[in-house]
Amino acid sequence: MAQAQNSISKIPVGILGATGMVGQQYISLLNDHPWFEVRFAAASPRSAGKKYSEAVAGRWQLTKTYAPHVGGIMVEDANDVSRAAEAFKKGECSFVFSALEMSKDETKALEEKYAAAGIPVISNASAHRWTPDVPVLIAEVNPGHTDIIPMQKKARGWDRGFIAVKPNCSIQSYMKPVHALAQAGYPAQRIVVVTMQAVSGAGYPGVPSLDVIDNVVPYIGSGEEEKSENEPLKIFGSIENGVFKNAEFPKIAAHCNRVPVTDGHSACITLEFADKKPSLDEIKAIWAAYKGLPQEADLPMAPRQPIIYREEENRPQPRKDRDTDKAMAVTVGRLRPSNVFDIRFFALSHNTVRGAAGGGILNAELLKYKGYLG
Amino acid sequence: MAQAQNSISKIPVGILGATGMVGQQYISLLNDHPWFEVRFAAASPRSAGKKYSEAVAGRWQLTKTYAPHVGGIMVEDANDVSRAAEAFKKGECSFVFSALEMSKDETKALEEKYAAAGIPVISNASAHRWTPDVPVLIAEVNPGHTDIIPMQKKARGWDRGFIAVKPNCSIQSYMKPVHALAQAGYPAQRIVVVTMQAVSGAGYPGVPSLDVIDNVVPYIGSGEEEKSENEPLKIFGSIENGVFKNAEFPKIAAHCNRVPVTDGHSACITLEFADKKPSLDEIKAIWAAYKGLPQEADLPMAPRQPIIYREEENRPQPRKDRDTDKAMAVTVGRLRPSNVFDIRFFALSHNTVRGAAGGGILNAELLKYKGYLG
Amino acid sequence: MAQAQNSISKIPVGILGATGMVGQQYISLLNDHPWFEVRFAAASPRSAGKKYSEAVAGRWQLTKTYAPHVGGIMVEDANDVSRAAEAFKKGECSFVFSALEMSKDETKALEEKYAAAGIPVISNASAHRWTPDVPVLIAEVNPGHTDIIPMQKKARGWDRGFIAVKPNCSIQSYMKPVHALAQAGYPAQRIVVVTMQAVSGAGYPGVPSLDVIDNVVPYIGSGEEEKSENEPLKIFGSIENGVFKNAEFPKIAAHCNRVPVTDGHSACITLEFADKKPSLDEIKAIWAAYKGLPQEADLPMAPRQPIIYREEENRPQPRKDRDTDKAMAVTVGRLRPSNVFDIRFFALSHNTVRGAAGGGILNAELLKYKGYLG
Amino acid sequence: MAQAQNSISKIPVGILGATGMVGQQYISLLNDHPWFEVRFAAASPRSAGKKYSEAVAGRWQLTKTYAPHVGGIMVEDANDVSRAAEAFKKGECSFVFSALEMSKDETKALEEKYAAAGIPVISNASAHRWTPDVPVLIAEVNPGHTDIIPMQKKARGWDRGFIAVKPNCSIQSYMKPVHALAQAGYPAQRIVVVTMQAVSGAGYPGVPSLDVIDNVVPYIGSGEEEKSENEPLKIFGSIENGVFKNAEFPKIAAHCNRVPVTDGHSACITLEFADKKPSLDEIKAIWAAYKGLPQEADLPMAPRQPIIYREEENRPQPRKDRDTDKAMAVTVGRLRPSNVFDIRFFALSHNTVRGAAGGGILNAELLKYKGYLG
Repeated sequence: MAQAQNSISKIPVGILGATGMVGQQYISLLNDHPWFEVRFAAASPRSAGKKYSEAVAGRWQLTKTYAPHVGGIMVEDANDVSRAAEAFKKGECSFVFSALEMSKDETKALEEKYAAAGIPVISNASAHRWTPDVPVLIAEVNPGHTDIIPMQKKARGWDRGFIAVKPNCSIQSYMKPVHALAQAGYPAQRIVVVTMQAVSGAGYPGVPSLDVIDNVVPYIGSGEEEKSENEPLKIFGSIENGVFKNAEFPKIAAHCNRVPVTDGHSACITLEFADKKPSLDEIKAIWAAYKGLPQEADLPMAPRQPIIYREEENRPQPRKDRDTDKAMAVTVGRLRPSNVFDIRFFALSHNTVRGAAGGGILNAELLKYKGYLG
Repeated sequence: MAQAQNSISKIPVGILGATGMVGQQYISLLNDHPWFEVRFAAASPRSAGKKYSEAVAGRWQLTKTYAPHVGGIMVEDANDVSRAAEAFKKGECSFVFSALEMSKDETKALEEKYAAAGIPVISNASAHRWTPDVPVLIAEVNPGHTDIIPMQKKARGWDRGFIAVKPNCSIQSYMKPVHALAQAGYPAQRIVVVTMQAVSGAGYPGVPSLDVIDNVVPYIGSGEEEKSENEPLKIFGSIENGVFKNAEFPKIAAHCNRVPVTDGHSACITLEFADKKPSLDEIKAIWAAYKGLPQEADLPMAPRQPIIYREEENRPQPRKDRDTDKAMAVTVGRLRPSNVFDIRFFALSHNTVRGAAGGGILNAELLKYKGYLG
Repeated sequence: MAQAQNSISKIPVGILGATGMVGQQYISLLNDHPWFEVRFAAASPRSAGKKYSEAVAGRWQLTKTYAPHVGGIMVEDANDVSRAAEAFKKGECSFVFSALEMSKDETKALEEKYAAAGIPVISNASAHRWTPDVPVLIAEVNPGHTDIIPMQKKARGWDRGFIAVKPNCSIQSYMKPVHALAQAGYPAQRIVVVTMQAVSGAGYPGVPSLDVIDNVVPYIGSGEEEKSENEPLKIFGSIENGVFKNAEFPKIAAHCNRVPVTDGHSACITLEFADKKPSLDEIKAIWAAYKGLPQEADLPMAPRQPIIYREEENRPQPRKDRDTDKAMAVTVGRLRPSNVFDIRFFALSHNTVRGAAGGGILNAELLKYKGYLG
Repeated sequence: MAQAQNSISKIPVGILGATGMVGQQYISLLNDHPWFEVRFAAASPRSAGKKYSEAVAGRWQLTKTYAPHVGGIMVEDANDVSRAAEAFKKGECSFVFSALEMSKDETKALEEKYAAAGIPVISNASAHRWTPDVPVLIAEVNPGHTDIIPMQKKARGWDRGFIAVKPNCSIQSYMKPVHALAQAGYPAQRIVVVTMQAVSGAGYPGVPSLDVIDNVVPYIGSGEEEKSENEPLKIFGSIENGVFKNAEFPKIAAHCNRVPVTDGHSACITLEFADKKPSLDEIKAIWAAYKGLPQEADLPMAPRQPIIYREEENRPQPRKDRDTDKAMAVTVGRLRPSNVFDIRFFALSHNTVRGAAGGGILNAELLKYKGYLG
């Protein structure tokens, strides 16, 4: 565990949507963060004006509780950007993590208001994922996409604020394994992916228990399959003329299912290589050696080894493996040849940590490391 | 519910492995069967010599209990074929359902002994699925494969006995939808299938609860994926020179997972057509119209409509749909185009009814209808 | 299965709250009812004006679907009593089952309006359970409490309409065993009861999956424990001067817990007798012999044996035993002496059948049998 | 997290039954222990002769893995006490934790052999719980019971070895709350306790998934209820003439149930005070102030606050609260008056940590602190 610095010297951060499930996860994960400290919290008008401890009374979902000083923070109305701007001026909020749970249009507009007010927004919401000049970051995969930030600022006329987002939690388990292979000269041409997703992905109250006890639901809702198919193309894409141009491959067909698991999204991947076909041993070696900028820069939230391969024939499993390396590592197993296409494997990622708040914090660390957070 | 005939006129049947989970399912499903009546039960030496009610005391898994007369049957040692032969002579056992849970080699040899003793064996065991002259029957899909029985008898020198088996429970949900399309002129070329299988597939005690509460296991064991890929090729194959010749297509790649569901195997299918590509509406019409010999002959265990399509975007679901039409219908949903290959859909079948004992009974009905059971 | 009479001769009934979970259960259970036929359905304004099939599209929770003619019923606004009154006049609604999900005060007032309009109300709602002249019926336990109906009508100035209700689902598993003992001369003095209740008790969407996967919640809400302690005293009470006078005993202390079970409420009971103490064998004999008016009158929904004792040390279990005898029987087990008080046992009842719609239908059959439904 | 001392100075310990579930839990919890280090491992003959990493391959159940040096330990046959004696001589095993999974008689005899060989045995097994001169320790409740150890050694003629055990996991959640009240002058007279126990209590493979998905089992087996009723009386008892004399009170009646929870045993307690009756606020104050020798001596495994009271009406819950304070704290909630007896409450304890390996380690720390471990 990293040594806590003097609290004075930490960067003050705010959480938008602080009382929701992802907001709680942010607050819990930032309890002992060496760089960042939660000093500002905003949520719906219903929570505004209450102390954080009151706003989440009876709704706190996690085993690990919030830090005492967070319990005393007065929750602001997230719609009132002036409150954050004021906090920014007083040095109480250097940037915000957005875990807003509004409609797409409302979220989009509100996040832009924060950015326009000079406050960088690192968002979990899906609203801006297809905005052409907003980067969708997986810190190990496309750290270079932060290069668009100066162009975004300039085009929008924003001074210090900007928007950066993370992709959908459903793709986290296979993006790094696929990226590792592409980087080693083995890009994928086509992928069939079937996910088995945890109920925490739907927030709280989220999925009714009558839908998952002794059951599977073959549908997640809200364009989950489309996101799983399209977001990778932006992440593998390039910047041209100040906007992102999607990659053309891999073509992905996704089936997204809900299973009776609390945390941890699993995926069964069937993959066709575009060209050369590595041996299974080569693939394992590539995954074992895979490192990204977060590992090289030793960012606090980075997993030491981003992809962990399990040799047991019945692993990974969500309950037993989701928490590997602070729940930030992707765990992979069952690599084998395939009758259809080239290879098959199984992959697992913790959806509310790596796939949500933990991934967002890692993105913030990346942005701080690159100098975008002041 | 079919009208019970006078018990005197029913065909007496035996169950091998009568105390195990599939054996229990057979006995429960045959409680009110209009043609067949359980009169003989055999199991491991541990149960032999006990009344059936004693042998299953504390081990009975089903809500519906066994018929009173079955409780009083004295359980025989399944290894002692002479007991069944005697029962056959006394008119107490016209044929047997085999739900043996021995090793593959033991099962193979023992089932052959029963057949040699003049007793037809309709088996759930996997032992004889790859025996070249043994048919693997799905009553709607390949009823013509019973034509091999006279050849089998002749080659083996068996008089009245023979062996017919059913395929693995994991393929039941997609074989009929795929067969319906092939029969209508749209054969599949390649299929990627990912199953989410119920714990009852592993029998009792079977899967430890610590492996499935809040969890998914990406492995079933015992060659489940190979069975899922290869058995369809025999079922779609043809008889040549007294043995089966496999079909070459569809090529299937299977991922088999265990999920926290008691009954009902689900599958996500991604399918490429060999040639012509029907529209989604055509496919639904083909499935709705699909009937086989069991429906035409109005066999007692046959579902009235073998493939039921649900239009809701979140169905079928195992708990809510597995029991459709005596748990003998396959339920299908979420048909949609696919970025990779041509179509995607979700399919569900009850693994211990349609996929095990119910499917076995339907096979026996088919064989009776065709005159193979005397 | 009872033989369906000519539909013409069946009594037409209505369902208030027809689209909710209990409403669905009523409609499903009345599919083949020999006496009653659903001809009228009312629900919230949101559903009003739609065909029943449209109103429940995507919300139907049960395996067994509604009868085709019910799918075509136009749903009325439950608040508009004139619609039911009209249906009553046209002979399309002789009485209603109330499964309303409004606030207590709204339900109370609305049920009274229906009764005032001449329509008997047989209710699942808790609103009128403590109204002094409304009987809380368990058909085997207190069938004599229907004697209050003429007094209720007279006091209210109602002509044909009246209100009768059923108790909370949490007490169904132990009321009959306790009543059987009292009736045999062994009344209980004090009872400690701990329930483990199914999620379906909270309706749909009801309990969030994040609250029950790998979890237990020691709280049901909405005065569940108070209901479990007090309703038995009214049921064991007597009519004095046109109102109910509660029994004084047994004193009950209840702990109510939510467990990850779909259907079936369980209870662990520790019981002190008031006076004489029967032997365990006597108790089992008393339970086995227990019959009530529903059994004597052979009412269609009545379980043949209201209390079933299981000798296995690990039964009853919700999933394996809840559906016993149309899910209308109470299953009991593990009777043993107790260090504290006199005896201990475990009891199970299906909460949405016996404890809700099935119990309501049985009450209607009782009222019909006694001549209160015309 | 305690600062790791130089490994040289740590006390070397052995684990009997090292490959089983409790054995794994010991090894995991001792990974970073400041005082103890695993240097010796013994298990069944099946595992003997293998490296620990090989012996548990495919059987390791926990998220946190074993320390690298443990993976390399050669597993010994637990029946061969000479191996441990040798390790003891070489300074590789100062005492052992026993997590043996043999029959009661075998365990009893084998643990005595280890003690006779000079090796103190701190046991999780139930075999010696009723041996009159063996203490059953809960470190906060009866630390004085270690006083029997010199008497035990003398009577047995043992030099350095002795046997100390811990009680059944089912009683851990309520013993401390009840002890706290007794110590404050409010002893309990009678208690009715109903437990809802996690499947990990049965080890691995343990409880079949078909017994707990969508289900509750009203039976644990192996005298669980008797243990829950009797062990507290020994723990509350006193030493007289070199043996334990049981307390007479509280009289306890226990109902023990298995629920679909991985870890964390819950209990619903109804309690009658012997004499004086504290107010609810007094009780909460007593629990909040409760400390024992482990807290005073600041033992490494001790929870800082042994009893944590949650004010929310729906807490504690196993999944959300079991890991509180290293999974060593007992969490209590829902304290309220009771119609029967005086008070009711709900209590939770982590069964494989506090109730098994963690409790054993805390006992070892207590014994070390008192000078019994050399």
